[in-house]
Amino acid sequence: MQRYFIDSTQIGPDRITVRGDDVHHIKNVMRMRAGDRLICCDSRGTDYLAELETVSEGEARCRILERMPSRGEPRFRVAVAASLTKGDKWEWVLQKGTELGAASFLPFISARTVVKWDGKKADKKKERWQRIAKEAAEQSHRGQIPHVETVMDWRSLLERFPAFDRVLFAYEKGGRSLGAVLREVTGERMLVVIGPEGGFTETEKSEAVAAGAVSIHLGPRILRAETAPLALLSCIHYSYGEMGGEPL
Amino acid sequence: MQRYFIDSTQIGPDRITVRGDDVHHIKNVMRMRAGDRLICCDSRGTDYLAELETVSEGEARCRILERMPSRGEPRFRVAVAASLTKGDKWEWVLQKGTELGAASFLPFISARTVVKWDGKKADKKKERWQRIAKEAAEQSHRGQIPHVETVMDWRSLLERFPAFDRVLFAYEKGGRSLGAVLREVTGERMLVVIGPEGGFTETEKSEAVAAGAVSIHLGPRILRAETAPLALLSCIHYSYGEMGGEPL
Repeated sequence: MQRYFIDSTQIGPDRITVRGDDVHHIKNVMRMRAGDRLICCDSRGTDYLAELETVSEGEARCRILERMPSRGEPRFRVAVAASLTKGDKWEWVLQKGTELGAASFLPFISARTVVKWDGKKADKKKERWQRIAKEAAEQSHRGQIPHVETVMDWRSLLERFPAFDRVLFAYEKGGRSLGAVLREVTGERMLVVIGPEGGFTETEKSEAVAAGAVSIHLGPRILRAETAPLALLSCIHYSYGEMGGEPL
Repeated sequence: MQRYFIDSTQIGPDRITVRGDDVHHIKNVMRMRAGDRLICCDSRGTDYLAELETVSEGEARCRILERMPSRGEPRFRVAVAASLTKGDKWEWVLQKGTELGAASFLPFISARTVVKWDGKKADKKKERWQRIAKEAAEQSHRGQIPHVETVMDWRSLLERFPAFDRVLFAYEKGGRSLGAVLREVTGERMLVVIGPEGGFTETEKSEAVAAGAVSIHLGPRILRAETAPLALLSCIHYSYGEMGGEPL
């Protein structure tokens, strides 16, 4: 069943009013008619099973049939800070990271980032990336859409560390194991930091640790820049009980 | 450092002789010279740190400096049976599945497989896919190259189940959790079975279970056909102690 994210202002006691691009989707892509059902998600923990009543150009009015707790959000909020990467790899990370429960995305540029980033297309890119996250959130039955932030430089990323309970810095050349670090974490807000194709420099590693991160390695095999975030998200949520993992 | 997979017949007491396409890579791509170092991997648990002595058209002779146990192989052998999928998704699964430790790949066609498969290009595709696995094994420091099998039909896949200690059938609509099943597994040879974009039919699920598989769900979010194998490989190996997970 189709899922649409709505704002709480669009929810009444008995009815929901969908507005914006999703109306076009309901009307022209899904070609829904009165009586068809859909799920509306308020990004605050509640899903609404609704039945379409009317569709006009600007809005779709639905009757609420049932309210259910949204089950698609993991218990721990894991934000993914990842360097921009070449080609479509970054968009893959957004899409699959969203499926795997990422809380938000912090794209950054570090010393070895290959991609040339100029501010000109920044807004359009960010819009596109946010749309990818939205579609992936809908398809994967997330309870909310992960926010995609504006591309930041290395210093700006470091300044964000204090807002998290734990920052895990993925570093090829050593560090502690993921499992050991997770067993120590208290608090539920985590940030994982993954570098570009060429990895991080020693200096960046020192700066990340000085800013409060723990350097972790990802096991005996080298994971590509676009694989590492997916492996981390999978294992972290599994550690906390998803997919039946023994919760820590 | 570059890594090359070699056959045990190429290994002498003090020297290794590299043959085939890798010679071209050493000579013309990496432009290695006498004195340069490389790692040769015998796919049987040993890595050899070697120094290049001579390169000719057909062979590269290297002196063995050191023998080391190969560390890139996971303890549990997890084969990935996945339906062919559209576009480059299948090749992504081969590449990233190899990074994440897949023992081998069993491509298959099931009821809802979208891709049209004709036998004509089968050999060329298999060659290409095997090459992708080889390159990914080299880059990710695997101890061996996962074998990519010939595309099989559903019946043929079912016949392969008895060779594994446990077969995990990824089914959207229910089943047990991954963690619960892993806590019961004895034996070290596992097969995970992932369907096409449209998923499996109820009949296929019944047939898989009748053939010995356990139906598992992958948590509260829907994972795409190309994401599911990566999440499964990550979590299974993590369960068995990789990345510092508490070994079961």
